[in-house]
Amino acid sequence: MPNIIVNGIGTIGKRVAEAIKKQPDMELMGIADVAPNTELITIKKNFLEETPVYASTEKGVEKIEEAGIKVEGKLKDVISEVDLVVDATPSGIDMKNKENLYEPNNVKAVFQGGSDSEIAPVSFNAEANFEDAKGKDFVRVVSCNTTSLCRTLKTVDENFEIEKVTANLVRRGGDPKQDSRGPINSIIPVTHVPSHHGPDVQEVMPYIDITTLAVKVPTTLSHVHMVTVELKEDKITSEDAIKAFQKDSRINLLSAEDGFNSTAKVMEKMRDMHRERNDMNEVGVWKETVTVDNGKLYWIHMTHQESIVIPDNIDAIRAMLDMENKETSIKKTNKALGI
Amino acid sequence: MPNIIVNGIGTIGKRVAEAIKKQPDMELMGIADVAPNTELITIKKNFLEETPVYASTEKGVEKIEEAGIKVEGKLKDVISEVDLVVDATPSGIDMKNKENLYEPNNVKAVFQGGSDSEIAPVSFNAEANFEDAKGKDFVRVVSCNTTSLCRTLKTVDENFEIEKVTANLVRRGGDPKQDSRGPINSIIPVTHVPSHHGPDVQEVMPYIDITTLAVKVPTTLSHVHMVTVELKEDKITSEDAIKAFQKDSRINLLSAEDGFNSTAKVMEKMRDMHRERNDMNEVGVWKETVTVDNGKLYWIHMTHQESIVIPDNIDAIRAMLDMENKETSIKKTNKALGI
Repeated sequence: MPNIIVNGIGTIGKRVAEAIKKQPDMELMGIADVAPNTELITIKKNFLEETPVYASTEKGVEKIEEAGIKVEGKLKDVISEVDLVVDATPSGIDMKNKENLYEPNNVKAVFQGGSDSEIAPVSFNAEANFEDAKGKDFVRVVSCNTTSLCRTLKTVDENFEIEKVTANLVRRGGDPKQDSRGPINSIIPVTHVPSHHGPDVQEVMPYIDITTLAVKVPTTLSHVHMVTVELKEDKITSEDAIKAFQKDSRINLLSAEDGFNSTAKVMEKMRDMHRERNDMNEVGVWKETVTVDNGKLYWIHMTHQESIVIPDNIDAIRAMLDMENKETSIKKTNKALGI
Repeated sequence: MPNIIVNGIGTIGKRVAEAIKKQPDMELMGIADVAPNTELITIKKNFLEETPVYASTEKGVEKIEEAGIKVEGKLKDVISEVDLVVDATPSGIDMKNKENLYEPNNVKAVFQGGSDSEIAPVSFNAEANFEDAKGKDFVRVVSCNTTSLCRTLKTVDENFEIEKVTANLVRRGGDPKQDSRGPINSIIPVTHVPSHHGPDVQEVMPYIDITTLAVKVPTTLSHVHMVTVELKEDKITSEDAIKAFQKDSRINLLSAEDGFNSTAKVMEKMRDMHRERNDMNEVGVWKETVTVDNGKLYWIHMTHQESIVIPDNIDAIRAMLDMENKETSIKKTNKALGI
């Protein structure tokens, strides 16, 4: 089984590490960070007792051991035994890691959507371009917003043909734990049109003509997108579109009529389902909003920013190590993560 | 084993039902409600597949079955087979249930803190007055705010003697799911001093001289209390107080220095521990705030409003049915709930 290390244990890294642990066909060889943080300490003590912890800097060993966590060694000393690193370090650090650690040691790496797209030759979404990542050394899993756009647009494009997309993004201010971020009581527009999300979708699906606009609002639970797709044919109905979304294993059709009429109510369902951390790995499309009118398809979806990219990180590993084809990898990941 | 039904499946009811299911010495005979709601449907489908659902009104049968949930019958038709009902219905409804359903059928009932204290002869907190509930027919588990005050004050009073308490409560506006409640961007004082919490503590511990003041703020994660206790002796140190809190199994000492410096950061730890629904059944006392100065003991604690009363509901059942003494009941409950 391939040996995987997760470098950078924050919002994404902690989830990817636990997700790798659940896969039957890969080994979580270790987790690494520059210093201890509350998240690393909590998951190490509760779920990864047996998983070695590595320090990613010289000073890291001492810092992490001071927090009562045994350090197995330095990441650079074991890097040659590793088949692949999932790098979830902050943007900028990841590029240095690539140049100083992964490239010199011939180790493959998955990067995250916060990095510049130039960090890897492939920007990745499992459903949209799994094959592009096959055998590659470096792959970047696109951000949460881009992931939800890729998933839904891939489904629409496969079933009906897309002429043009306009997506208006209402972004959460921060994650639940990031309680010193703004905005508080204000809405902040991204003043550059298009926002970076449209071009980022095109890194994955260059054939999609898309323009995105974005604002940031005072909420922590999820992003919400309002999407308009101009279709090439005008015979499609909203029922056709709902059926197409329904078939996608990583899209949840949400029903406002059934009581799930806000991001908070949907998150409460995740809590009631005892989903770990109340995560929702799926894109949530509100069924009632899926509307076709005069050749245009409209819908609203929500994107749980902390967890939506986790399955795609796992599928990226399988693609890069040539372990499975797209369908089998997605099925395996879904099964292991309870999707 | 005693047969228990939970009537009213909302924030408290759903958690109590699942908690009863986990106890080795009582049987969850069923859950009941007037109509289906998203929470009832979700827990029934995910964890209580085998648990019968009863309708608590005539029209309820049809309404619940319309939502695709099989109804076993009407609550009133099986009430005579029940040993105890945990009533988590809204205040007012619970009183009608007592008069029309529980009293005529000689069925014991646990009520919740939202009810008037007159609904039951005993207002209950497991640590403060377990014995008062022994063998009683009706008991009211006090509210989340009162529960956290009772737990911490009982500990302080047992270890040191209390002269006088002043507690200032900063209350959350609503639960995470209650997204149409206020306040938004405002702070609302309770203009009656004392707020109802002080007198409610005295329902449990009549010997405590306590005054409470309260405000409501725009947050959903937890209440926070700032407590001042005038002590009878002046030789106590903050270390003594910290040690006393540490010994209580239902108090978590939180350390801001370790990174848990806000309600959001503490809730993130509950998520990282995969606590169901990220609940925290314990009172969280910030260690650094426990301070003794000039005969006064100060501290700040947080109260997870949705889950803090769940263990006390379970202990109330054991007390009322004379199943165990206080220490054994608390240990059993803690073990089953992972406290």
